[in-house]
Amino acid sequence: MSTGTGTPDPTRRSERSRQAILQATRELVSEVGYAKLSIEGIAARAGVGKQTIYRWWRSKGAVVFDAFLTLSQGAEGIALPDTGDIEADLRTVLRATVAEFADPAFEGPIRALTLEISADPELAAQYQEKLAAPVEEAKRERLRAAQRAGQVAADADLDLALELLYAPLFQRWLFRSGPLTPEYADALVEHTLRALRPD
Amino acid sequence: MSTGTGTPDPTRRSERSRQAILQATRELVSEVGYAKLSIEGIAARAGVGKQTIYRWWRSKGAVVFDAFLTLSQGAEGIALPDTGDIEADLRTVLRATVAEFADPAFEGPIRALTLEISADPELAAQYQEKLAAPVEEAKRERLRAAQRAGQVAADADLDLALELLYAPLFQRWLFRSGPLTPEYADALVEHTLRALRPD
Repeated sequence: MSTGTGTPDPTRRSERSRQAILQATRELVSEVGYAKLSIEGIAARAGVGKQTIYRWWRSKGAVVFDAFLTLSQGAEGIALPDTGDIEADLRTVLRATVAEFADPAFEGPIRALTLEISADPELAAQYQEKLAAPVEEAKRERLRAAQRAGQVAADADLDLALELLYAPLFQRWLFRSGPLTPEYADALVEHTLRALRPD
Repeated sequence: MSTGTGTPDPTRRSERSRQAILQATRELVSEVGYAKLSIEGIAARAGVGKQTIYRWWRSKGAVVFDAFLTLSQGAEGIALPDTGDIEADLRTVLRATVAEFADPAFEGPIRALTLEISADPELAAQYQEKLAAPVEEAKRERLRAAQRAGQVAADADLDLALELLYAPLFQRWLFRSGPLTPEYADALVEHTLRALRPD
């Protein structure tokens, strides 16, 4: 909302620079790849000085991390659909994830982020806390509702359940070892739910 | 076998250099990590010239790949155990894989290799053909025997079965996101077989 005054708002200008930097990072990582991405290049594309970037981020990896975080929050939200049918809901979610991984706008940042968090335990901890943990908790919450509805075994290991759903998809994407299709998403849901079925 | 002559055998000397280079690569990647590994460093440790390395390998990634390939072939072999009990046999194999991932001698090369093949599609294709494909076929062959024995559904998707078994373990290792224990290996086997059970 406008402040109604004629003077520039430093907070708002600052936020505009931040968004320009994140946008430039997403564009460049898709265009040139993570290895060739540089702070200089981001600064030039965003129209800011290098110092502005280093004021907010300690490394290239940290900027890419935030660029990805912003994108993911916008696209994914935090609550999973709950129509009462766990299989239908997981199909919706997994099909969306498959589509996301196949989207060139995500491909660059996600691959860069994956390499960074594999190589940098500090970034890995940040990723886990800020990005992965809230999303995983939302997914576990949906599975708990399915447990209450008797669709998933009461004693199911929900962390393992999430790994069965998502790790095959992630590995297939990382190594380009097979097609990422809606049918594949459905097969992962079907197999995981069969593994978790109440006796 | 000795040739029985007193003259040096160039083939054997060449093989000794090759093994020294691969050994040096394994040691250095564990000691300093992939990022700080250099062809110069490998040459110095192996007692050969840089040219000797570049004669056989086109990049640092290619040397690490072969260093890992040799290690893996020696340690793993190619046939899976077949006692007639698919659950027991998969537990044996998965527990060994978990132990391998937890072994510091493997940690460096496997992490380096993972980052390389994720970033370099040509190396990824080599990896798939030379290393992954034969091992995966051995695993599928064991699952086919279990299908014939009625322990796994006749129409099971065996590629998906391998992903359910191994991708969670790989992802947990890559992101250090949970403990890699024999119990975890057992849980993966149990859940996968439940998902693949005949109706």
